[in-house]
Order: sequence, then C-alpha cells, then structure tokens
Amino acid sequence: MNEPSLTPAVVIGAGLVGASVGAALTTAGVEVHLIDSVSSHARVAASRGGGSTEPIDPATVRLVVVAVPPAKLAEVVADALATYGKATVTDVGSVKGTVLADLRARGVNLARYVGSHPMAGSQRVGPLTARADLFADRTWVITPHDTSRAKAVLTVHALARACGARIVSMGATHHDEAVAQVSHLPQLMSSLTAARLNDVPDEHLNLAGQGLRDVTRIAASDPRLWTQIISANSEAVRAELEAVRDSLDELLAGWGDPEALRRFLADGRQGTRAIPGKHGAGGVAYAEVVVTIPDAPGALARLFADIEAAGVNVEDVRIEHDPAREVGYLAVQVTKPVAKSLQAAMTEAGWTLRPAESL
Amino acid sequence: MNEPSLTPAVVIGAGLVGASVGAALTTAGVEVHLIDSVSSHARVAASRGGGSTEPIDPATVRLVVVAVPPAKLAEVVADALATYGKATVTDVGSVKGTVLADLRARGVNLARYVGSHPMAGSQRVGPLTARADLFADRTWVITPHDTSRAKAVLTVHALARACGARIVSMGATHHDEAVAQVSHLPQLMSSLTAARLNDVPDEHLNLAGQGLRDVTRIAASDPRLWTQIISANSEAVRAELEAVRDSLDELLAGWGDPEALRRFLADGRQGTRAIPGKHGAGGVAYAEVVVTIPDAPGALARLFADIEAAGVNVEDVRIEHDPAREVGYLAVQVTKPVAKSLQAAMTEAGWTLRPAESL
Repeated sequence: MNEPSLTPAVVIGAGLVGASVGAALTTAGVEVHLIDSVSSHARVAASRGGGSTEPIDPATVRLVVVAVPPAKLAEVVADALATYGKATVTDVGSVKGTVLADLRARGVNLARYVGSHPMAGSQRVGPLTARADLFADRTWVITPHDTSRAKAVLTVHALARACGARIVSMGATHHDEAVAQVSHLPQLMSSLTAARLNDVPDEHLNLAGQGLRDVTRIAASDPRLWTQIISANSEAVRAELEAVRDSLDELLAGWGDPEALRRFLADGRQGTRAIPGKHGAGGVAYAEVVVTIPDAPGALARLFADIEAAGVNVEDVRIEHDPAREVGYLAVQVTKPVAKSLQAAMTEAGWTLRPAESL
Repeated sequence: MNEPSLTPAVVIGAGLVGASVGAALTTAGVEVHLIDSVSSHARVAASRGGGSTEPIDPATVRLVVVAVPPAKLAEVVADALATYGKATVTDVGSVKGTVLADLRARGVNLARYVGSHPMAGSQRVGPLTARADLFADRTWVITPHDTSRAKAVLTVHALARACGARIVSMGATHHDEAVAQVSHLPQLMSSLTAARLNDVPDEHLNLAGQGLRDVTRIAASDPRLWTQIISANSEAVRAELEAVRDSLDELLAGWGDPEALRRFLADGRQGTRAIPGKHGAGGVAYAEVVVTIPDAPGALARLFADIEAAGVNVEDVRIEHDPAREVGYLAVQVTKPVAKSLQAAMTEAGWTLRPAESL
C-alpha cells in the first residue's frame, strides 16, 4: 500500500504542540493550514514556519490535527469531522479515553477519527517555542478504536512518521492506564512528598540531600496544566492512588515489624528494575564516581576532557551542590567494572574524588 | 578555651565510617587505635592509614568513636563509657533518640556521652572504601543532651572539625524528626511509587519518562540497610507516614473536584520551594537547554567546552537516554535569563537543541 497522502493538512490549535506539528509537516513537504481561536497565535506559528493562515476548501483536506486544550478536544474533533468531510482527524491530547467516550456520547461517526499522543512538549506552551524537531525520536502513541477505518489509522501513522517520531500503538484504555501508572501517579507521589515540606522547619530542611531533591523535582510543575491532565484521566489515576493507599495502609499496619519493612523496601527495589534502562537494556548495575569541581573557569570542560581521555563510557552525570560552600561535585555514573579505572585516572589527573550519596 | 585534645583516640567499628574517621583523625595528627569485632577489618583499616591496631591503656584515652551497626550502638557506647573512664564517647549512628533512650534505660551516667551523625557514607560499607576526606564539607550533626558535660560537647565539635565537616547542633529528638522528614519519608515514598511498577505491564513501562526515574531512583537502595535505619526511627517516621496517609485520604475524598486537585498540586509545588537551593539560596527559577549528544568520541568534552565558552553558569546537568536509539541528550539547567543566550550560542556552535521533559 502506498503511504497515505497528508497534504493538504489543517492544524487546529497553534500552541507549542500544534505549531510544532505544523512546522514538522511543512518541513516534510506537506501543505499546512493553521487555525487558532486566538488568530495571533496562528500568525506567530505561520511566521515561524508552521504553515499558512490562508483559508482552504474543506473538501480537499486529507488530515486534521486537533491540538487544543484537553477540555475542548471532543467538541473540536466532532466539528472537524463534520467540516472536513474526507479528512482523517486526530487529536494530540495526553489522555485518550475521555475524548473517545465524549465523541461516542455525541453519536458521531468515528470511522475517520484516530486518537494519538505525541509524548513531547515542555511546559512552554506558546507557539514561540515551537520547532519542527520537537517529536524527533520521541514516542508517539496511536490509539485506534474498533470503528477506526484502516486508512485513517495509516494516515495517523504517516503523520507520526513525518514528524520523526517512534510509533507505539495501543488502545485508548491501555494508553490511559499506562500514563496513569508511569506518569500521573509518580507526579502525584512527588507532590504528596513535597507538600509535607510545607510543615518542616527550616533548620530541618538544612539536612536535605539529593534523594529528597530527586523525589520532589517534578512536583515543581505547573499545577493548572497537571490538573487538566489528571482530571481527564480521573478513573485510571484513582485506581492507582487507591492501590498506593492499600500499600501504605499495609505498611502502617505492620509498622514495627522489621521483616515487613524489609519486604516493602525490597518490593520497591524490585520495581525500579522494571523500568527500561538505557537503550532499552534492562537493569544494569552502575557505580558513581564523584569529583569536586574547582571554582575556576573552564573546570567542567577540563573535567569532561579528562573523563573522556580515560576512555570510559559515561552513563549519566549529575552536579551536586554543597548548600554551605561555593563548591559543586560532579557525580559520574559508569558501569561497575570501569568505576575503579575511572577513579584511578581522575586521581592521576589531579582531581579530588569522594564517595557519593550520604545517608 | 583551648581546642580539646583528641589524642589518643579509639575508634570502635572499622567499617566505612569508622575507618574514615580513623583516617581523618590520623591525617589531623591524632593517635588512633582501631577495634573491630572482625579483627581483619581493623587490620585492613589500619593498613589504609586509619590508625593502629596496637592495644592502648584505657585510662589515657581522650575520645572514643563508636561506629558499629545501629542495633549494637547503645551496648557498645555503655561498655566504652565504663572501659575508658576519662574519655568523651560519641557514636555515629544515623538515628539518635533510640541510642540515648537505651543508654538512659541502662542507668548509665551520660556526662561524657554526646551523640553525633556525620551525614556521609555511601552504601559501600567495608573499610576498603574508607577515606580521610569522606566528611570534608559534609554536614555533621551533633546532638548534646541535658546531662552532657560541656567539655564532652566541645570534644565532639573538635572531632567533626578535625574531619573537615560542617557542624549542625540540635537535640536528638529534633534530629530524628528532621531525618524522618527529609530523608526517611522520601525514601519510603520512592519505594511506594516503585513497588507499584511490579504490577505494570512491560508495554506500559515503555512510556516511562525521566520523571518516573527521578521519583524512584532512591528506591533502588539496599533494603536491609534502610530497614535498620528506619526501624531505629520508627515513631518519627510513622508520624510522617500517617500525615501522608491523611493527605492521600483527603485527595481521594475530594477526587473529581478539579479545584481540590489544583490546590493539592499547588501545595506540592510550594513544598519544593522550601528546599534550600544551591549555596543555601532559596528557590531560583531555572530553565533547561537540551542538547543532542552525538555518538562520537570526545563529544561530551567538546559540548562542555562550548557551554563554558558561552560564558554561562551551569546550575545542573543531566544526561537523558532515548531508550530506542543509540543517542543521548544533555539537559543543562541554567537561570532563566541566560537560557536564551545559551540556546543561541549552542545553535551557532552547531549543536542540535530541543525542548526538555515530555509530559
């Protein structure tokens, strides 16, 4: 079968994601028409290579991408299916089941609708931050339903491919369960941990280490954006939260029993090993080599030059700051077998090392 | 008042922390005698500059540092107070209240005992990993009690200073509350989040992003070590866990109300701002510039050289890996005002940029 044609395409909603889809399709040679309820957004996106703001004959349109806020998705998709009578229509919302249920409740024929979720997009939401390569090598989940026409599914695949994304195909319910588990629940757990800090005296916070910072980092995200995302996935997230509450109740019920606590902690460690690692490889054991960064111009560059001269493959790096001193540390993660040789090489090159992570 | 003399000193327990104290004191010119129930540990520590394994007249000892596992601390401290009749005795356990209560229950005179907690020490627990600079610039909490003699308190201060640490003084109860809040609770929250992943299908885990990895990183720690630490701080940690359960119950009770969810998320964001930032400064807003790391030798070093040539102050860096491709990204955190100029400089130098963090 030939690759379905995407041209001409219409993008409705010229925020970061919509404008970036427009730019990616334009780069791929597709004729793109941009529409936004705030017309200046469409003009800004057009001026940055996202397409044109000229009107187009709706009957000729092959693809419509709906990139409006979560609460408006179903309404705009339904309108687009009616307006663009031959086009495949997709949306880029980060939750899929609610849109589909809402469309079904409207009695709309959904043969030409296929939902999708490009997993990219920072918290910068305007068209000024749009870019053609936003989706390059990112996951783009495509969620066909039982009444999707095959041609529509193939068209959305072609869209994701034109944007340079890596395609994952799953049903809307599976998708929403997956993001509830790997994204929405961790977001709430981070917030739950961070919220406790509002009651912690400053002198106690001075004992905070890197662990607390890691666990609470994503809690600093925009509350309004996450309220919309989680509200749209309410049932799946509630199920996850209830499972966590059950685990927490069980932990508290067995409190004081060291063996119950050890099992709980061992379950947690086991869970971390389920996360796909670098390049899809499973859990590899890493070691950290921590180097003091001298407070001198070019120190980091010289440090990296020496690390690379040591010939080791760096898996990850992290800068730690000492809160009381004008000094930082570079924590370099390497596979265990090479940690010793890196330590030796760093010491020989005159750097100051020390063990990582305090308890 | 003169600096109290620390020499000769005895270190009981030649694991990482004890052997490192021995090495730091030896470097500072103190005569150190090492004791370990496993005599080979003491010999290894001695061979690495941690002190001597020769016997010493107990009546001459000025300082005893007890660095044995949590469950044995009180017993060994009590023995040391009896054996070394003129010495100040401290321990280095990461929980303070239980040791103190246990010592009081034994009816021991505690005038010469002052607890302490050097906040350093990785999970590598043997004397082979010991080093004289383990405590350099780390926090060392000293926990005097109401019957501590002033000279004993000053002696433990001198110990921490000799090891190069930054001293924080607080009561044992405050210390234990503080570590329950900023260390033990986050550890359990990370485990709670990670444990859920054991029930998540692999195809869902493929959608995992950096946020999940951050929240669950410390859950990969050693369950046995953390069972001991948390068991010794059982009451303070239970209080924290119960507060979290209350918040979780409240969140679930208001589930479906977007305004309640938004307030919950806003509380979390507020909490992240309570954590002291770099160099003790409060919450500064950072932006991230994400650069593709080419798969070529020396790429990271050249990248850092170009970042430093751009003249910006790097606050933090993180390497992200794409699970499906042999490519990585360097996420560079800078203050918001300089993000744009860094982006421009990187683009001009030929690097490929893109926005960070997918939702």
